[in-house]
Amino acid sequence: MTASLDALDLDPAFALHRGGKLEVRSTIPVRNADDLSLAYTPGVARVCSAIADNPELVNDYTWASNVVAVVSDGTAVLGLGDIGPAAAMPVMEGKALLFKEFGGVDSVPICLACTDVEEIVETVARLAPSFGGINLEDISAPRCFEIEERLRELLSIPVFHDDQHGTAIVVLAALRNAARLTGRPLSELRAVVAGAGASGVAVTRILVNAGIGDIAVADSKGLIFEGREGMNPVKDALARDTNRLGLKGSTEQALAGADVFVGLSGATVSETAIAGMAAGSIVFALSNPTPEVHPEVAARYAAVVATGRSDFPNQINNVLAFPGVFRGALDVRASTITENMKVAAATALADVVGDEVAADYIIPSPFDVRVAPAVTAAVAGQARIDGVARK
Amino acid sequence: MTASLDALDLDPAFALHRGGKLEVRSTIPVRNADDLSLAYTPGVARVCSAIADNPELVNDYTWASNVVAVVSDGTAVLGLGDIGPAAAMPVMEGKALLFKEFGGVDSVPICLACTDVEEIVETVARLAPSFGGINLEDISAPRCFEIEERLRELLSIPVFHDDQHGTAIVVLAALRNAARLTGRPLSELRAVVAGAGASGVAVTRILVNAGIGDIAVADSKGLIFEGREGMNPVKDALARDTNRLGLKGSTEQALAGADVFVGLSGATVSETAIAGMAAGSIVFALSNPTPEVHPEVAARYAAVVATGRSDFPNQINNVLAFPGVFRGALDVRASTITENMKVAAATALADVVGDEVAADYIIPSPFDVRVAPAVTAAVAGQARIDGVARK
Repeated sequence: MTASLDALDLDPAFALHRGGKLEVRSTIPVRNADDLSLAYTPGVARVCSAIADNPELVNDYTWASNVVAVVSDGTAVLGLGDIGPAAAMPVMEGKALLFKEFGGVDSVPICLACTDVEEIVETVARLAPSFGGINLEDISAPRCFEIEERLRELLSIPVFHDDQHGTAIVVLAALRNAARLTGRPLSELRAVVAGAGASGVAVTRILVNAGIGDIAVADSKGLIFEGREGMNPVKDALARDTNRLGLKGSTEQALAGADVFVGLSGATVSETAIAGMAAGSIVFALSNPTPEVHPEVAARYAAVVATGRSDFPNQINNVLAFPGVFRGALDVRASTITENMKVAAATALADVVGDEVAADYIIPSPFDVRVAPAVTAAVAGQARIDGVARK
Repeated sequence: MTASLDALDLDPAFALHRGGKLEVRSTIPVRNADDLSLAYTPGVARVCSAIADNPELVNDYTWASNVVAVVSDGTAVLGLGDIGPAAAMPVMEGKALLFKEFGGVDSVPICLACTDVEEIVETVARLAPSFGGINLEDISAPRCFEIEERLRELLSIPVFHDDQHGTAIVVLAALRNAARLTGRPLSELRAVVAGAGASGVAVTRILVNAGIGDIAVADSKGLIFEGREGMNPVKDALARDTNRLGLKGSTEQALAGADVFVGLSGATVSETAIAGMAAGSIVFALSNPTPEVHPEVAARYAAVVATGRSDFPNQINNVLAFPGVFRGALDVRASTITENMKVAAATALADVVGDEVAADYIIPSPFDVRVAPAVTAAVAGQARIDGVARK
């Protein structure tokens, strides 16, 4: 085995992952019996008793209120699909690493050996006393919608499916700046979203809430419209709130004359279709590793192009959102993450770009140190306004 | 709230616990986009794919095989009883801290919002892909026995209820040295155990396995003997394997002429009863914070006295066992912790004392740096001998 590991480790990604990417450390000293008698028995018993008498104190005297469970069932991991909980672990560890590095949020990767909605919901609910928030990750649609919704109802801590809302927040931020750059309000834009999975649905929802002019969503069978047969309840609801023009057919057909394309499907879109969009078009080709249309091709026609990749300008990267979203929510012990808090995060993120906005700079770099504090402050502030802050 | 916290924080145990005692940290650098592209997308996808193809690789390329879940339902916390999952959290955090400080084992406190055996078993089984071992903690008897047994059957990673086996290992180590000091083999000793909860049952089991001469166990209704009515299956089984003399009545009655007393009950034992033990008696009064008999009183009659407290000689402290037990098991990726591995841990722990054994030194200090490496090596070695090592 060692020999084959050495072969794998020739790939620097494997070498970096050897032994994992995380550790748990003590934040207090344990040098001698006196330290031990405070951190553990007998001193710890007084802290336990105080929490038993006043359960809210668990937030002050344990790490629970600062630690997020990064929960996946491994069914929709990156572009790899249903690879199971063990194979999902490197991504969840990576997420935990990003939480800490970018938001100062402690988190623990939890990959579950179950995929049934009921089982995931009850398992996460049973874990909840140990955590200050739940970040759902890489759970396939449409189960992810019901799991998140039910956990939000059951728990009084933030529950946030990052594939949905992290992506939605960053897309909204980028689109605000792209619209500003091209001199139009969101309400004058007609958008087409390719993909009705977790991110497609959430992006569409946040754009509808933000007042986009019109928006049509396509799944693998084509555009979603009211009355289309055989759709799940999530798509039925989407159909009611979108596609006011009643478009039918393919993504490419809908793109004719459209202002905005958001690709979240993994499918490809032809150069011809991009060329047929309205003047001043905005193209977010976000599938990884292969964008729906090559950004250099899109740039021949579009005013603004963004991708999910770090090797092109305007990277739409969830890490711009989730660390600050949770940091802000935890800081004020928010009981939930409201729609307003997501919009506030997007606005704060867009505002980091400010007057420097340009076709190749509609969204900050993940390494811009202003991002997490701005998102944190916006989310915490909005939590207070929305009455969900408890501190 | 802040004012009242400041008042609580006048107690140094509270001040130390403010904000919790743990954090999760990255073990690798994330300074720039290149680092991110290896630790997260796109590089991480190659690692995920490799694990999907060969699930064993999860042990090499994630932290899962090095991290232990410290799982409690908060039903039997210290001497405080059923205080619930939130109030149990400071103890589980403390345990995690000790795992790291003493054994280099990363661990995560998981306090569950359920107490039903079935629910705990299924919840832990669903979490298992994320962990290399399960340390059950402060779960009340007799549920703890069934939970551990069922999880041991279900999972192919070590499952170890520390209240049982940690205590049992350290008691066996201490008793070996006490017997050696007083010039008798274990097979010539008659022992009385007060308490048939988690630790009482496990201590009795390990002493039976180690060849103790005879041993009688008492619960709150008195001595356990074959045919006593109304006992649970665990006690029925104990009755079959213990108390060959067929003693009935109280702990104190059984102590008359006995060689060894192990107190794990929280009850008190009179000076008269201790005085009535055989010459050269060994008294382990392990209840915390109040031993069954004051060690200075016991020392008037007994050749060797131990307690659970750090302020008297011979502290029977689980931290002498569990960090090394898990370190050893994880190092060789043991699929389980066998009875032999526990006995090997006890022997190694006793051997640390070596020729310095004395009435006030039958067990090493928790801060003796030789302890964890000795236990680790013994457990790992025995795992290989027992054929449960996978590395």
